[in-house]
Amino acid sequence: MLVLGLDPGTRHFGWGVVLRRGSRLVHVAHGVVHTDESQPIASRLVVIERELVEVLAAHKPQVASVESLFFAKDPQAAGKLGHARGVALLVCARAGLEVFEYPPARVKRTVAGSGRAEKSQVAQMIRIVLGLTVAPPTDAADALAVAVTHLQHAGILAAGMKGVSRG
Amino acid sequence: MLVLGLDPGTRHFGWGVVLRRGSRLVHVAHGVVHTDESQPIASRLVVIERELVEVLAAHKPQVASVESLFFAKDPQAAGKLGHARGVALLVCARAGLEVFEYPPARVKRTVAGSGRAEKSQVAQMIRIVLGLTVAPPTDAADALAVAVTHLQHAGILAAGMKGVSRG
Repeated sequence: MLVLGLDPGTRHFGWGVVLRRGSRLVHVAHGVVHTDESQPIASRLVVIERELVEVLAAHKPQVASVESLFFAKDPQAAGKLGHARGVALLVCARAGLEVFEYPPARVKRTVAGSGRAEKSQVAQMIRIVLGLTVAPPTDAADALAVAVTHLQHAGILAAGMKGVSRG
Repeated sequence: MLVLGLDPGTRHFGWGVVLRRGSRLVHVAHGVVHTDESQPIASRLVVIERELVEVLAAHKPQVASVESLFFAKDPQAAGKLGHARGVALLVCARAGLEVFEYPPARVKRTVAGSGRAEKSQVAQMIRIVLGLTVAPPTDAADALAVAVTHLQHAGILAAGMKGVSRG
């Protein structure tokens, strides 16, 4: 299964593609879309859409995974994040991908063992889990982390359905 | 000048097109995109995008006008609104429309004389200002109101640049 993880933001938009081959997680690609802060938000969303469409065309993921809107930020920040997240959901759904959502604390717990892990810890654990030589930029690491979270969750479900315990 | 006003929402998305011919404001069209709450947000954003693309194709507005993110709602509501607003800005910017933003209180003041006007008052004033026989649904009325706000603002600017007073 090929999963696209997304870490939406209007300034820095992280993405990462992870494949599960049997019980192995394989890193496929990652990147961060940086937008020009001097441009209006509307123009920056056009850049984000274009880049995401290219990522989908290049890697053809089957599902997308993104952190849920589950935070205590201020309304202004939440609204801005919502813009980028809305474009992300749109692009994925339009391309026929099912989108799965996971609370941020769960993503951190899955990857770094604690729901309160720092971004740098998540990046280091992603480096280890996916066998990368250097840690990805934190925005891309967060995107890879939510992809890994989905693969582990989906793995548990599949195992459960087959009556196989994980022990 | 032909202006598209937008009142973004993930459940009810209002839009309205207004033309200024000389000093007259002319109602062109309005509508509300209703999405199915039982569907995932990503699918609903696809419906919103498709409908907005059709509105742009049908009416070919030159600019868009939308309320700014200037509210005191809770982060969860702001994030959800941001999704719909992000898709709206994306569709407009992608089509080459410049997007203007106005604070909600200013829109209400422009149309209904008070920054604290109720939605029903805005709808009634829009009915009168645009010479409609019945008041539009409140979501469409809000969209028409932000279009009217832009036309009045643009009118003041144009008059100012020509050195003509509005008295």
